[in-house]
Amino acid sequence: MAQNLIFTNDVMAAIGQIEARGGHNITVWIADVNTARLLSTPPRHLITIPDGDENKTLETVTRVWDEMERMGVTRHSLVINLGGGMVTDLGGFAAATFKRGVRFVNVPTTLLGAVDAAVGGKTGINFGGLKNEIGAFAPASDVITSTCFFDTLPMPEVKSGFAEVLKHAMLSDRNEFLHLLDHDFTVPIDHDELLERLRHSVQVKEDIVARDPNEQGERKALNLGHTVGHAFESLAMKRGKPVPHGYAVAWGLVTEAVLSHIKLKFPSDDVHRLGYFVRDNYRDFPFTCDDYDDLLELMRHDKKSRDGEITCTLLAAIGDYRIDQTVTADDVTAALDILRDLLGV
Amino acid sequence: MAQNLIFTNDVMAAIGQIEARGGHNITVWIADVNTARLLSTPPRHLITIPDGDENKTLETVTRVWDEMERMGVTRHSLVINLGGGMVTDLGGFAAATFKRGVRFVNVPTTLLGAVDAAVGGKTGINFGGLKNEIGAFAPASDVITSTCFFDTLPMPEVKSGFAEVLKHAMLSDRNEFLHLLDHDFTVPIDHDELLERLRHSVQVKEDIVARDPNEQGERKALNLGHTVGHAFESLAMKRGKPVPHGYAVAWGLVTEAVLSHIKLKFPSDDVHRLGYFVRDNYRDFPFTCDDYDDLLELMRHDKKSRDGEITCTLLAAIGDYRIDQTVTADDVTAALDILRDLLGV
Repeated sequence: MAQNLIFTNDVMAAIGQIEARGGHNITVWIADVNTARLLSTPPRHLITIPDGDENKTLETVTRVWDEMERMGVTRHSLVINLGGGMVTDLGGFAAATFKRGVRFVNVPTTLLGAVDAAVGGKTGINFGGLKNEIGAFAPASDVITSTCFFDTLPMPEVKSGFAEVLKHAMLSDRNEFLHLLDHDFTVPIDHDELLERLRHSVQVKEDIVARDPNEQGERKALNLGHTVGHAFESLAMKRGKPVPHGYAVAWGLVTEAVLSHIKLKFPSDDVHRLGYFVRDNYRDFPFTCDDYDDLLELMRHDKKSRDGEITCTLLAAIGDYRIDQTVTADDVTAALDILRDLLGV
Repeated sequence: MAQNLIFTNDVMAAIGQIEARGGHNITVWIADVNTARLLSTPPRHLITIPDGDENKTLETVTRVWDEMERMGVTRHSLVINLGGGMVTDLGGFAAATFKRGVRFVNVPTTLLGAVDAAVGGKTGINFGGLKNEIGAFAPASDVITSTCFFDTLPMPEVKSGFAEVLKHAMLSDRNEFLHLLDHDFTVPIDHDELLERLRHSVQVKEDIVARDPNEQGERKALNLGHTVGHAFESLAMKRGKPVPHGYAVAWGLVTEAVLSHIKLKFPSDDVHRLGYFVRDNYRDFPFTCDDYDDLLELMRHDKKSRDGEITCTLLAAIGDYRIDQTVTADDVTAALDILRDLLGV
């Protein structure tokens, strides 16, 4: 499961080094219609796929397999996935299953992709209306994390990724957590500084995944903020007014920090610090107390929950997580009230 | 990669024990139209697929995924593949990729399936005209080996499987090899005796695979007999007169035993013992010296060969194998001549 993690702002040099380690007969790039444009010189073998989660389908992966066959890809070839989570998920699945596994490298081009989809070995496609229904646990041999693609990302996308960075700090290190809360989204990206933050964040995920690659237990730590966050995301989606994933996660992190305080005495100071950061940067919260019943219902059906109970990962303190914590509807209701107070909505 | 190997002639009791170990919400059986009939009571959840290698396709696996979704299969479900290599290959791939991996059990119903496809973790489907082009290395959690399905197998199928049993003995144990050469196909199957032979044979494969699950090196030992055997099989197929896989392997084993004698001083006594057994049981050899050029050309393009050289696994003695051995066209020509002498054709 060990993935080689490379942090650099010279992506092509890193790929050159991977190719130089040698033995590959062909290097094939997989990119979407947007990320293909990031390549100044078109590579000899490039498979371009349509962008967007709605194209993360069996049809697209079939086209990728066809192209790989046409190009003469073998088990001695190298695949490079250049894109956001959609490209690394689908490209990783295509590579992992072609001839039972071709080596692949992920080059995430979004902040969310860098700290979430690109590391950890989850690959897959949507199927039958369900997200990531078909897939494999298959690690990229190397993941090249770079901030050089982020200058042109829309701000909601940057903030979306940053929420996962916050989550990783909450799972691991209070100094890092406090440092992140000083982040100012209004100034241009400081690439060296952000790359250091990513180095910390990606390593947290990698360490947890290395101890539980197939999500049997400890990996559930990474669900912090997501039981509640997914409910926000799903309800907004159902109503035809989707919210960015990371915003839902940010609200989920605050709500689950409150739940952590209720159940595990997580310090209220840190709840407030987090709450104010989220208020200042992820304010557009579109729910009221009239939505609580719908949200609770969604949480009960979350894949982490069983038998109608609501299950989440909670914290006794920053860095001290506890998986498989059950909470009551009353707990969640109280936490949602406090979230709305903190956000001032 | 560890697979739990169960040898029994009470298959339903073994499955009952696996289910009793517990935690599974649903048990789903995958069978083909023939092997589904082996179930005296139809199980609650049964997915029936068409039989034959020509149906080992993306279309069939898509139908299986659809059915699994409809039945409510989750990561806590259990899949049981009941059939020959086509069912265990395709059903294994479907299970390994559904929700990134559902536990599955293989119950091979053919001798060839029992000693070949069902163990070792190779799953997959044919794609774009190529065999096993899409797939995954994904071990069954349990493999239930039983001889109770073999009484009704056509004799060429029994012999086909037996050639792989011979191969495993040649890779591991001279006593077992000599014991197998006493086998008489004209008497009814002695189930207890055959189950013991399978116990030995399957364990040989499992041990080799455990040391090299993803076929990086040592697993190539299992290709003994197959560089030459595949050439026989492919040429017969091309001419529209296919031969059973195991017959091609049996002729391949003899040819590669001769090559082993030429290159590694494999004892000529054992070449002769093997040759006479193959003459007595796998005689219908459809090639002459006019076919040598075609056969050599196919061997040069075997996936084990590189740069036009012919590569195979050879033996210095029974149980003492050497992978990645290159042989010349002259060596192969001499070996084919001796094969034809031994077969008396």
